[in-house]
Amino acid sequence: MPTNSTFYGADWNPEQWPEPVWAQDLALMREARVTAATVGVFSWSRLEPSPGAYDFGWLDRVLDGLHAHGIGAVLATPTASPPPWFTRAHPDALATRRDGVRLVHGSRDTYCVNAPAYRAASLRIATALAVRYARHPALRLWHVHNEYGTWCFCDHCARAFRTWLRERHGAVDALNDAWTADFWSQRHGDWSEILPPRATQYLGNPAHELDYRRFLSDSMLAAYTEQRDAIKAVAPAAQVTTNFVLGGWVPVDHASWSREVDLVAIDHYPSTLDGVPAQSAFAADAARGWSAAAGHGGRWLLMEHAPGHVTEQGVQRRKPPGMLARTALAHVARGSAGAMYFQWRASRGGAEQWHTALVAHPGPATRLFAEAVALGNRLAATEGRAPSDRSADRKVPFPTGEPAGAATACGEVAVWFDETCGWAVGASHLPAPVDYQGIVEDWHRALWRLGYQVDVVPPSAALDGYRVLVVPAAYLLTDESARRLERYVREGGHLVVTYLSGIVDEHLRVRLGGYPGALRELLGVHVEEFDPLPTGTAVTLDNGDRATAWTEHLTAPGAAVQVSYPDGRPAITRREHGTGTAHYVSCGLAETATAHLLDGVCAAAGAAPVLPGLPDGVEAVRATDGVWLFNHTGESHDIAGHALQPGAAMELPAFSSLFTEIAATRSR
Amino acid sequence: MPTNSTFYGADWNPEQWPEPVWAQDLALMREARVTAATVGVFSWSRLEPSPGAYDFGWLDRVLDGLHAHGIGAVLATPTASPPPWFTRAHPDALATRRDGVRLVHGSRDTYCVNAPAYRAASLRIATALAVRYARHPALRLWHVHNEYGTWCFCDHCARAFRTWLRERHGAVDALNDAWTADFWSQRHGDWSEILPPRATQYLGNPAHELDYRRFLSDSMLAAYTEQRDAIKAVAPAAQVTTNFVLGGWVPVDHASWSREVDLVAIDHYPSTLDGVPAQSAFAADAARGWSAAAGHGGRWLLMEHAPGHVTEQGVQRRKPPGMLARTALAHVARGSAGAMYFQWRASRGGAEQWHTALVAHPGPATRLFAEAVALGNRLAATEGRAPSDRSADRKVPFPTGEPAGAATACGEVAVWFDETCGWAVGASHLPAPVDYQGIVEDWHRALWRLGYQVDVVPPSAALDGYRVLVVPAAYLLTDESARRLERYVREGGHLVVTYLSGIVDEHLRVRLGGYPGALRELLGVHVEEFDPLPTGTAVTLDNGDRATAWTEHLTAPGAAVQVSYPDGRPAITRREHGTGTAHYVSCGLAETATAHLLDGVCAAAGAAPVLPGLPDGVEAVRATDGVWLFNHTGESHDIAGHALQPGAAMELPAFSSLFTEIAATRSR
Amino acid sequence: MPTNSTFYGADWNPEQWPEPVWAQDLALMREARVTAATVGVFSWSRLEPSPGAYDFGWLDRVLDGLHAHGIGAVLATPTASPPPWFTRAHPDALATRRDGVRLVHGSRDTYCVNAPAYRAASLRIATALAVRYARHPALRLWHVHNEYGTWCFCDHCARAFRTWLRERHGAVDALNDAWTADFWSQRHGDWSEILPPRATQYLGNPAHELDYRRFLSDSMLAAYTEQRDAIKAVAPAAQVTTNFVLGGWVPVDHASWSREVDLVAIDHYPSTLDGVPAQSAFAADAARGWSAAAGHGGRWLLMEHAPGHVTEQGVQRRKPPGMLARTALAHVARGSAGAMYFQWRASRGGAEQWHTALVAHPGPATRLFAEAVALGNRLAATEGRAPSDRSADRKVPFPTGEPAGAATACGEVAVWFDETCGWAVGASHLPAPVDYQGIVEDWHRALWRLGYQVDVVPPSAALDGYRVLVVPAAYLLTDESARRLERYVREGGHLVVTYLSGIVDEHLRVRLGGYPGALRELLGVHVEEFDPLPTGTAVTLDNGDRATAWTEHLTAPGAAVQVSYPDGRPAITRREHGTGTAHYVSCGLAETATAHLLDGVCAAAGAAPVLPGLPDGVEAVRATDGVWLFNHTGESHDIAGHALQPGAAMELPAFSSLFTEIAATRSR
Repeated sequence: MPTNSTFYGADWNPEQWPEPVWAQDLALMREARVTAATVGVFSWSRLEPSPGAYDFGWLDRVLDGLHAHGIGAVLATPTASPPPWFTRAHPDALATRRDGVRLVHGSRDTYCVNAPAYRAASLRIATALAVRYARHPALRLWHVHNEYGTWCFCDHCARAFRTWLRERHGAVDALNDAWTADFWSQRHGDWSEILPPRATQYLGNPAHELDYRRFLSDSMLAAYTEQRDAIKAVAPAAQVTTNFVLGGWVPVDHASWSREVDLVAIDHYPSTLDGVPAQSAFAADAARGWSAAAGHGGRWLLMEHAPGHVTEQGVQRRKPPGMLARTALAHVARGSAGAMYFQWRASRGGAEQWHTALVAHPGPATRLFAEAVALGNRLAATEGRAPSDRSADRKVPFPTGEPAGAATACGEVAVWFDETCGWAVGASHLPAPVDYQGIVEDWHRALWRLGYQVDVVPPSAALDGYRVLVVPAAYLLTDESARRLERYVREGGHLVVTYLSGIVDEHLRVRLGGYPGALRELLGVHVEEFDPLPTGTAVTLDNGDRATAWTEHLTAPGAAVQVSYPDGRPAITRREHGTGTAHYVSCGLAETATAHLLDGVCAAAGAAPVLPGLPDGVEAVRATDGVWLFNHTGESHDIAGHALQPGAAMELPAFSSLFTEIAATRSR
Repeated sequence: MPTNSTFYGADWNPEQWPEPVWAQDLALMREARVTAATVGVFSWSRLEPSPGAYDFGWLDRVLDGLHAHGIGAVLATPTASPPPWFTRAHPDALATRRDGVRLVHGSRDTYCVNAPAYRAASLRIATALAVRYARHPALRLWHVHNEYGTWCFCDHCARAFRTWLRERHGAVDALNDAWTADFWSQRHGDWSEILPPRATQYLGNPAHELDYRRFLSDSMLAAYTEQRDAIKAVAPAAQVTTNFVLGGWVPVDHASWSREVDLVAIDHYPSTLDGVPAQSAFAADAARGWSAAAGHGGRWLLMEHAPGHVTEQGVQRRKPPGMLARTALAHVARGSAGAMYFQWRASRGGAEQWHTALVAHPGPATRLFAEAVALGNRLAATEGRAPSDRSADRKVPFPTGEPAGAATACGEVAVWFDETCGWAVGASHLPAPVDYQGIVEDWHRALWRLGYQVDVVPPSAALDGYRVLVVPAAYLLTDESARRLERYVREGGHLVVTYLSGIVDEHLRVRLGGYPGALRELLGVHVEEFDPLPTGTAVTLDNGDRATAWTEHLTAPGAAVQVSYPDGRPAITRREHGTGTAHYVSCGLAETATAHLLDGVCAAAGAAPVLPGLPDGVEAVRATDGVWLFNHTGESHDIAGHALQPGAAMELPAFSSLFTEIAATRSR
Repeated sequence: MPTNSTFYGADWNPEQWPEPVWAQDLALMREARVTAATVGVFSWSRLEPSPGAYDFGWLDRVLDGLHAHGIGAVLATPTASPPPWFTRAHPDALATRRDGVRLVHGSRDTYCVNAPAYRAASLRIATALAVRYARHPALRLWHVHNEYGTWCFCDHCARAFRTWLRERHGAVDALNDAWTADFWSQRHGDWSEILPPRATQYLGNPAHELDYRRFLSDSMLAAYTEQRDAIKAVAPAAQVTTNFVLGGWVPVDHASWSREVDLVAIDHYPSTLDGVPAQSAFAADAARGWSAAAGHGGRWLLMEHAPGHVTEQGVQRRKPPGMLARTALAHVARGSAGAMYFQWRASRGGAEQWHTALVAHPGPATRLFAEAVALGNRLAATEGRAPSDRSADRKVPFPTGEPAGAATACGEVAVWFDETCGWAVGASHLPAPVDYQGIVEDWHRALWRLGYQVDVVPPSAALDGYRVLVVPAAYLLTDESARRLERYVREGGHLVVTYLSGIVDEHLRVRLGGYPGALRELLGVHVEEFDPLPTGTAVTLDNGDRATAWTEHLTAPGAAVQVSYPDGRPAITRREHGTGTAHYVSCGLAETATAHLLDGVCAAAGAAPVLPGLPDGVEAVRATDGVWLFNHTGESHDIAGHALQPGAAMELPAFSSLFTEIAATRSR
């Protein structure tokens, strides 16, 4: 099957089951029209039961079985969970916490990515897998490791950190300056004095913490590329990736990693049931943004999500009927090459026995499996059909799973999202608690709810072509990024910058002379003081909107005041640069206030929603040759009346999704 | 004094006081008609001030003093708190936390039960005590150790755990299968690879955790039996026990331990003041159940409780006047051989100087001590009287402290309570937080409030004879237990099973094919999906009752639907098996809903409250020859009108308790 | 400049900036009429970049620059933050947590005060600084270390603790008795068995914990005096101090330390914005009390506070305009020798880059710096003027910064505050959570709000001269203190004692025979039981006031009952001793109830507010030759009508402060 055809399937762990179950699984996969199964993710202790002794027989049978059933294999290297024998043989290679506690095996991810023994064993097993399977006909994609993201503070890391710092900073005194080491007598005389940010007495040095996180990202990237290169040495044409796990705790810079994979792949586990549509849109837009900026054309893959539940504050909220397909297609609409789940068959035991699966403990005779079959049929129905095929029917339930034929259109509006800026915020002791990604998601969600097609872009993205660019809380902003934002405005772009942007340089040193240092001139404002608000309090602005969480005391020497605080001071300003504009929002805004502001800016910038006037809870995503529609509500809606063709009826049933070729008006 | 006479007294720690105070204490004990004092519990550093050098002189005088005053001694071995010298000499014998931190002395319970040096020292001091005191005339009961329950994760434990696993599982691959070790690459190649469940990176393996808890229970049991056997080697007729401490954190399987003691003894510390009556009923019913199932005839002893307070969220709530006797007798009514307190005289210093005591810091001229004297008189008044003596007065305040004469009657209703099932729940990563014991207590409390006599039974209990058996959240259910429940129904019993029962086998492996696997056929239901509810939400069932916490999606192929969810799906079902019935409750129920359901089931099963129609807050407990009555309210109640003899007045004053021979109607 | 002239300035960290910034700083200091700058606090890694190699050149230029600008230097020894090289060379000298984790450098305070290597290195750098700078003309005050308060539990500490205990207790058995070591088998046979209170299994021994805290205080005091003596050995006339950090976690007995400094200096960081006036009054009154009791005449110095913010539950609340001066002067009014801030210029990087500063990141053109200049002018306006100068103008905005001329008058009312009593409470496992300092502050605040001039006095203070003495929750009360309180009453004083006073001796042993043991006779009450209230509940007393948190069951054999509980039992009592009275308050009181009680006691005792009848939020502090007035409200008030001169108008604008010579009526 072609590499670029739709991925539909799940993690499959046949090693947890007797072989008769494998045959049932393959038959069920066929029934569900599964196209890909991820295997081997946690199989190290089966593949190499003792050091250097391999047992590939069972995996041979697994891959052969997949091939025989026309299912592609996403083959993982198992290095995310070394076997018990490994950790017994190399106790120094276990992960060590900040407080020096060495974590033992008994879960997963019990390794130090900088431990030589771990790296050697990982490379060995990855190479052995490549040699054996690189040319297996079932093989479709290599899945190196699983969810890189393990922190460690051991002596191996200390040594590697010093080397990394030496390369980054050159001289110890350069590092001292970068880290403002004169504060609290932290000036180093020699590289040997530097440790990981282990448990210390009181507040740590933010620059130290940030550099350590960058170092961990680079350490794990080196571990990844080492395996990737070993695979490609065996099979140069191999497609290789690793599945990104999202979350503020993850020390991985996904934007830069995206350049090292052949297909950007993310695992997405939303945090609330009601939040699934908006959170899915954000994660998908971010993945597409990483892919596009890394030169992959915006194509990516949802490698894992949960079939039947969302874990919300410790409770597995059940996904209601219809949500499986709707959520899968919402990712596909935003550029995912398909929809892959964790996992195929629910485990009987182990830590995640209660994680939902496509084939649940009761077996395949379930509502959920029936939905999985329906989704498979839907995805398969038009597989391989040319886009023109779709014109036969103006209203096609799901014309294709082939994103090459229905690629997501670019947005007119972009939101700046820099994960390393979130690290900066997390490492710093700010005047108030700040949730960087939460703020970015707030701005994205406001645009999403207004119906705009939004791109979420990393700092490396091309900015031309966006009518509006929103930069929320970009606390750390490099000189280069600041210059790019300035160019964007001078070339006619419309920029919205919020509080806490442009504050520090890449070493977390405050840009002096008035906030927001790097953007002061561009925005025409001068912030003198921050004035964060206690939780639960708000300030009513002169336009009636409510400010929360953060306010500032500023003057606007070069900008027009759009909205003011109660005492008349500027709250939101606007500066014109030729045809471009630069807005500054000095306060946190309640959701309606954010929408209010954005709607005005977008309208003035000539940006339009995909389909204006859609009912609440109905989402439209523009593809190059049509529009996806998602009804997240429990009521049926007549869409035609809203923005499609006058007079034509188009019913969108409750909780449904469809693709239509009727292109929405695009304003540029 | 006879071993089977009432125990009334407290922990007495004369070593904390100068000897003149001892004489006062003995006189006060006599005044309060104390029959037993627990001594030596934390006296190791006094008894063996340096290794191998004993000082028994003071304890000789203590026991002689007790004997001279006609008070029995409950003599403890002091092994729950090794002296400072021990932990200095054997640092390897200290308890080690999951994260590897070795805990030092300075509190109590600072030892590893698997450390050879600890076991040897414990055996030595226990033997020395036995040799010296086994034949002392004051000696009434041996109290080995105190509140076994210490966790440890050290290397001694690791070694012992491997031996225990080898005996339990036989082969490494059997263990791998039992633990579903293929999940997350946890397959072991050799016993040496297995560690205690120490701090690891992420979620642990539930089967690993559960086996470790079983191992700790067995380790401590071995430590106990070692001491017990040493005592019995010296004095074969010695009565030996240890005091059970209750709580979800305790790694002790009290049901199986009950077979190894001569008298089941519990320490009971309720968690809320208002909850004392219901919590006391539950703890007492559970202790009686352990005793009965272990062949001790339902007799047990309340070894410790707090005289004057209940610690509720960190605040010592004062027990109001009258509560001392009422609570003591509520335990006695349920089979306790008496009422023992911690402690006799409040300590001047140390960690528990603010724990209440019978003789408080102000001395004996207190309200509380006066109540203690009154209770002693009440317990002593009829000591030794034959049951028939009581007929002289139809209304006897407290005719006897002799449980042999007033044994608690068996209940018609039983609640299944398996502490190891609670461990299973605690070790597992369930779809929602589940408090196993909390659920069991909810069902018990509903029955208790309805006025039924309830037995709380471990899985080893005989089930015949119960009209109704309630099995709440029996997540882990062995094949044998499932067979016993089936036999119970087929023989005419009425079974109520709740959600999350019969789900996993003894290794925490899900029983496949539809929940509740082990009971699916018996109940005639097939559960396809769990649908736990977020905290604070509820669903109204079609009978108007409210479901909380948990719901399910099920069909009832073999059962009649009694109550449905709002969408018509079955919520509560009933299957008939001959004259027996098996009910399934697929959701959490609010307290009134639980009562509503149980009242119907019990009525249909022919079970009746002890005294129907009692006012709220008035409790009746049936003894073989009468009824205990407890008025937990601040108002006086006329009981006669309710269920005793028509026309006869029987006043039950506020906060009072009494025993009457007027037997309540018993329906079987 | 004279040592006793006003201190006005801040911590200055020129080593964080290029030298051109130093010149700007000095010019700005001059503009703001700064009189003192604290330098060198965290400069060790700059002063001694490698072991034994000093670099004093930059500090020479700093001190010379200060001198050239007429600014005094408060020169710190940098020992609060050893450089990275130190901790690399002496890993054993790092602080160790209770759980054995050794904290690494990377923050500040990473040292063990009992480590020989640390003490030697500290003494070396302090001596080197003394030799070089003791005679520098800028030098005004030595500032040894910074905020002593580091806990450590390492082996160095263990050894030193044993030595300390041996000196305190003499014999092991005396220690066993003091610690009530027979509880839980903690009796020691030998000094070697004693450890710091490291992580243990369960509740620790309160006496152990308390002695450890005393030991840490003494250890740090020895470290301080070692440096102080080294400085004075070089320059006998040197003025030496260290800045006290306040807070319940600090193991420093500031009352006894005050005898070892030449000027009591505190750092004060209030915890809520609204609480600043009351918290400032308390901290200042306490500092004055320590100073007076130590023989320093009540003079002290506010060494650090935050210029622009108060951190309230993690959020930096901005101090509104006017608050800088008002808060500074509120401290000065209470005896501070000036107002010093942390810090002068906001750091670009490092852990505290977001701590506000007099010169903020935007530079000096800010509202805050303008206020700093205004304050400087105000403080300087009358510097050196004789007190009589002020008579020229009856209404002088701020006549002098010279406390020698405007010394705070003694209060008529005193509040007993013993930090070691707070340690005792914190170490003990009380019947309910008790916040000792919170209770003391509650009573102080009630008096403050009523307008009384209050002295906060340590146990060593002279008590004669106070009309009223309030002793809140003096849980630990020595025999000597009890005798002094008795003498105070017998000599005509009016004493108010609250619940939880006089309960334990200096070793935390309960005083037997009825609470409050040490004061039972004096108060004429006998408490039998404590009855703490759950959070959120209250009891209404018979005078309509509300009791919260704590109640008791007592009799009043020797006292008159003033207020009763609902059931008629005594709640508040009063016993006369000649003209003296002793009140006992057995319950927690709501704020209005506290005020109600105190107003009555004070009135009866002949104590009067500084200016009776002031509006809410207007504060008056009496100096020897006038009155300070602070308007903490946003409204202007006419003060004259209240208590000054009839007929004379005196307007106190919103948020303003002023000093006036019109002496208030003083009643004694």
